[in-house]
Amino acid sequence: MSNGYWGKIMRVNLTDGTIGTETPPEQFYRAYYGGRGLIAYYLLKEVPPGTDPLGPDNRFIVAPGVVTGVPYAGAGRNSYGALSPLTDAYGEGEGGGFFGAELKRAGVDAVVFEGASAKPVYLYVHDGEAELRDASHLWGKTTGEVEELVQEELGDKRVRVAQCGIAGENMSRLAAVCNDLTHYAGRAGLGAVMGAKKLKAIVARGTTAVPVADADKVRELARWMVEHWNESSQGLHDHGTASGLVGLSTSGGLPTRNFQQGHFEGAEKISGQTMTEKILIDRDTCFACPIRCKRVVKTGPPHNVDPKYGGPEYETLGSLGSLCGVDDLEAVAKANELCNAYGLDTIGVGVTIAFAMECFENGLITKEDTGGVELRFGNAAAMLEMVEKIARREGFGDLLAEGSYRAAQKIGKGAEQYSVSVKKQEVPMHEPRLKHGLGVGYSLSPTGADHCHNIHDTGYTKSVGSAAGWGVLEPMPADYLGAEKVRLLMYNTIMKSANNCMVICQFVPWRLEHLAGLVEGITGWNHTHFELMKVGERAINLTRVFNLRQGFGAAEDTLTERFFEPFKDGPLAGARVDRDAWQKAKVTYYRMMGWTDDGVPTPEKLHELGIGWAIDYLPADARREAGA
Amino acid sequence: MSNGYWGKIMRVNLTDGTIGTETPPEQFYRAYYGGRGLIAYYLLKEVPPGTDPLGPDNRFIVAPGVVTGVPYAGAGRNSYGALSPLTDAYGEGEGGGFFGAELKRAGVDAVVFEGASAKPVYLYVHDGEAELRDASHLWGKTTGEVEELVQEELGDKRVRVAQCGIAGENMSRLAAVCNDLTHYAGRAGLGAVMGAKKLKAIVARGTTAVPVADADKVRELARWMVEHWNESSQGLHDHGTASGLVGLSTSGGLPTRNFQQGHFEGAEKISGQTMTEKILIDRDTCFACPIRCKRVVKTGPPHNVDPKYGGPEYETLGSLGSLCGVDDLEAVAKANELCNAYGLDTIGVGVTIAFAMECFENGLITKEDTGGVELRFGNAAAMLEMVEKIARREGFGDLLAEGSYRAAQKIGKGAEQYSVSVKKQEVPMHEPRLKHGLGVGYSLSPTGADHCHNIHDTGYTKSVGSAAGWGVLEPMPADYLGAEKVRLLMYNTIMKSANNCMVICQFVPWRLEHLAGLVEGITGWNHTHFELMKVGERAINLTRVFNLRQGFGAAEDTLTERFFEPFKDGPLAGARVDRDAWQKAKVTYYRMMGWTDDGVPTPEKLHELGIGWAIDYLPADARREAGA
Repeated sequence: MSNGYWGKIMRVNLTDGTIGTETPPEQFYRAYYGGRGLIAYYLLKEVPPGTDPLGPDNRFIVAPGVVTGVPYAGAGRNSYGALSPLTDAYGEGEGGGFFGAELKRAGVDAVVFEGASAKPVYLYVHDGEAELRDASHLWGKTTGEVEELVQEELGDKRVRVAQCGIAGENMSRLAAVCNDLTHYAGRAGLGAVMGAKKLKAIVARGTTAVPVADADKVRELARWMVEHWNESSQGLHDHGTASGLVGLSTSGGLPTRNFQQGHFEGAEKISGQTMTEKILIDRDTCFACPIRCKRVVKTGPPHNVDPKYGGPEYETLGSLGSLCGVDDLEAVAKANELCNAYGLDTIGVGVTIAFAMECFENGLITKEDTGGVELRFGNAAAMLEMVEKIARREGFGDLLAEGSYRAAQKIGKGAEQYSVSVKKQEVPMHEPRLKHGLGVGYSLSPTGADHCHNIHDTGYTKSVGSAAGWGVLEPMPADYLGAEKVRLLMYNTIMKSANNCMVICQFVPWRLEHLAGLVEGITGWNHTHFELMKVGERAINLTRVFNLRQGFGAAEDTLTERFFEPFKDGPLAGARVDRDAWQKAKVTYYRMMGWTDDGVPTPEKLHELGIGWAIDYLPADARREAGA
Repeated sequence: MSNGYWGKIMRVNLTDGTIGTETPPEQFYRAYYGGRGLIAYYLLKEVPPGTDPLGPDNRFIVAPGVVTGVPYAGAGRNSYGALSPLTDAYGEGEGGGFFGAELKRAGVDAVVFEGASAKPVYLYVHDGEAELRDASHLWGKTTGEVEELVQEELGDKRVRVAQCGIAGENMSRLAAVCNDLTHYAGRAGLGAVMGAKKLKAIVARGTTAVPVADADKVRELARWMVEHWNESSQGLHDHGTASGLVGLSTSGGLPTRNFQQGHFEGAEKISGQTMTEKILIDRDTCFACPIRCKRVVKTGPPHNVDPKYGGPEYETLGSLGSLCGVDDLEAVAKANELCNAYGLDTIGVGVTIAFAMECFENGLITKEDTGGVELRFGNAAAMLEMVEKIARREGFGDLLAEGSYRAAQKIGKGAEQYSVSVKKQEVPMHEPRLKHGLGVGYSLSPTGADHCHNIHDTGYTKSVGSAAGWGVLEPMPADYLGAEKVRLLMYNTIMKSANNCMVICQFVPWRLEHLAGLVEGITGWNHTHFELMKVGERAINLTRVFNLRQGFGAAEDTLTERFFEPFKDGPLAGARVDRDAWQKAKVTYYRMMGWTDDGVPTPEKLHELGIGWAIDYLPADARREAGA
């Protein structure tokens, strides 16, 4: 209840090395929760238009959420944010693991970095204290080496490390933020922001349990989860996030050969089940989670995959597997290890390589461009070589390190048609021609194409994690895009946004009606799911205002052309996103959200969310459009 | 969980005497809950424009709610609805007591009456069975006589009776529906609809407990209430709803002499405390409620007030006391008894008499009009005589039985300025010049001026029953009408609407975050406060569509001129509702609600609420305006 704890925001100026703490009133933390809400707040307030994402005026924000570090399954995540060097819009990425919980146990709710250091540094936070330390000896090292060196140097095996990797140092726009070696906030190129600031790592160690107002209440909810998770998540435990990969291929929704197909003849070979059978040596987890969906894999020659980097997620098996036409599980596991060691977003890298493969197969680029690499679908060795080159910005990899959108611009000759991206960010492994609402969701996500914006689409029943707690009871066809679907999409995006503020895992099968109770149990606030949804809606609106100011409006809420074209073959042959229905759904979403037909939040909507102050941050034309 | 119970709607055709039952799918009951939601649904579907409120095509609906009859404090209420003969708009009134619970125990969730009987009848519902019985012998009898006769005739002292009273028989537009003798759904003239249909009463007897899905959960919430009610509601128990009457006068918000003043020199004499001291003989209650806020009073000569009719509420002490300038507590108690015996709305009657007094004092009417009555402020005998005359439609009472708005039209000479009403319904005892948001609320209420639409306004802290569970944490001045206040007003009207759907008492100090749990415990639905708020919002929108079709749009969302004029003296001397601020707040409310600037719900808003079907019920011009 007391503000002794909630909302302790550490401020670090990397230019002059000063460190301070600000403690906004409790209302602040209650309105924004952490994660997305907090990131959007600081970015809107402190990163004006014209800021260079890779310059000192950008902010880099580390933001666990209101649940992080509390012993409840799914509460082991944390978020990172900045003006994205990949999209030039609102940038946010989230990862699991233990780092966020450790930061909270060290007494810090978020860290906002500004400025840039002249030489490599890392921030060491330990039980409320913080210092910037020299990181010159860590520069150029893999994530595994860095973690080991830092633990040795600090004489503490239990410090938790978040870091940017070599890709970040090289300011690749596909650079991820890594924490705990096996957890990656992949999207938005945030590792490059760390690299640009010469911030090699943030290291946390805390020994104080995160305060909980009503321990019994939290324990009861945690116990419910322990008793019920396996009813719906046994598959996640057994075979990881890729447990449904073959099923997706069968139904035509497994992105294959740069989204040209939706089924992959090699699906069985790269499935979660095959991974379990062939290369899995252990299961790993995040703070306080019994599900253990994380994989630990190991292989012998030729790839000798190092188990310390965990194992590939579904997104990785898709993007570096089927999307590149690669059915060699060990090669994909190797690519995953490389991305992790270098700090790369496996989705961005996989989709960008698949893009290059399609360019190559269509003659837009040749072996002359690729440094001799036969960059064709199905060529696992070529895929692996490209991952290395992207990480090091070597040869053709220097171009691909910019992401598929910018690479296409440089290649020209119509290469743009092969960049499967929205707002310059590569589309993840969920096919809008299978789940049509997802296509609208990709268009509307503030971070560009993003599977954490909304993912569910196929219809709902009264099962756990469903939409029943919002009063949406009727299942709807996956290819339906009418107003009823947009309603569900809207609720879903608001909920996901709230999840991103809390910051809680979306794989853990909590029930909607538990979440407000969880926040109430932790904070002592008398809380409702209505308030929780408003936190999510508030955060979406802040990101929208930020993006409008960055020049991203309705015209930028696009969807890759490819998804408007029908599949030529496979289970979904002929299926495409209907352009008119998609356009209509987008405007319906705007209106349902209380936005203008151009996607501008009205002053009344911002006031309704308690963020009337944000009206002044709208660009002049948007302000006029919204009647402010 | 099963549809064996939820949503059993009895249909009674009074013209041909047929009785049937319809059981819409469970989704129906979940979307509408009962009460307001259910009434609005049936009225919109079945009462088209042009329907005579007092003709056979109007519906009369008895609707308990999803919580009614479950042993939880505040769950003893039920609602009545029809096209209002007073406002010609959506009409709804709610009362406490035991009747609603008994109806639910008889296995019925609502009764929809249509048609009209040729001779007086009453409906007897007992354990799922129902019959229409002759009521000729009850016609012309007081409510007390009717209840006694019915209990005798049926040989069961435990039957519960809802009835229209003599005022209803006479089709007074101020006629209430009475149940259990001491509980009145006063507003909207619904007793007249019963009278017009020759439906004298509905009698219920049930022996089956209302099914509860999770008895432990409901019991736990009920126990919380039993343990906590007195923290905030001890005053309600001790001195009834009038416990704050003197405080209101001191702060200038006690409606006095037809709203000419806000303080009353006789306040102490008619206060709840004085009532306790002088005439209280017992406290009464509603089903399952420990608060016992209901009064039972008794006096000797000259008035000989009969305790069987309970005692006056705050609204009655205001409207028949200070508003008429009457400081004679026993006379007010007598007026209350008379209204109850005849079935009259004490608010409507009191405000209409005060209106007539002001007309009289200003010479618009004379003793010639009033049949010799010196109808001046402070004349208790005149006030009592007028109550009698209104009930019996005798002499000048025949005019006043039409309500102040219609009476003013007939009187002419500028009498309209003295009718303190909105949408033709008399303003209750809450002063907009004290609580300015309330003025906007009066304008927006679908039923016309109504203290059950929104009442709180003065600002919020984190106390029980507050707005904290919506994330509104900052108190605001009572005279502030900016967007932040409109936000609170909107949440508040949505919540009150949800309460009116549930149907739950607004005096019981439940916590916002308990309500969804209560509904979940009762029904077994996995429920959230978000869904609950959407039920409330859905119902508001249905009433809005209904009213638009009846010709009530933004231009009809008025506020009595009097409130725009400053108090001449008293604690709030000079205070007035700022017309521009009020107008702006109204439009801000429309926009926040997802309505057009003319107050028309957009198709997107209706779809968002899962009631896209209602678009077709908008009148053509409103449909155009909303872009449907």
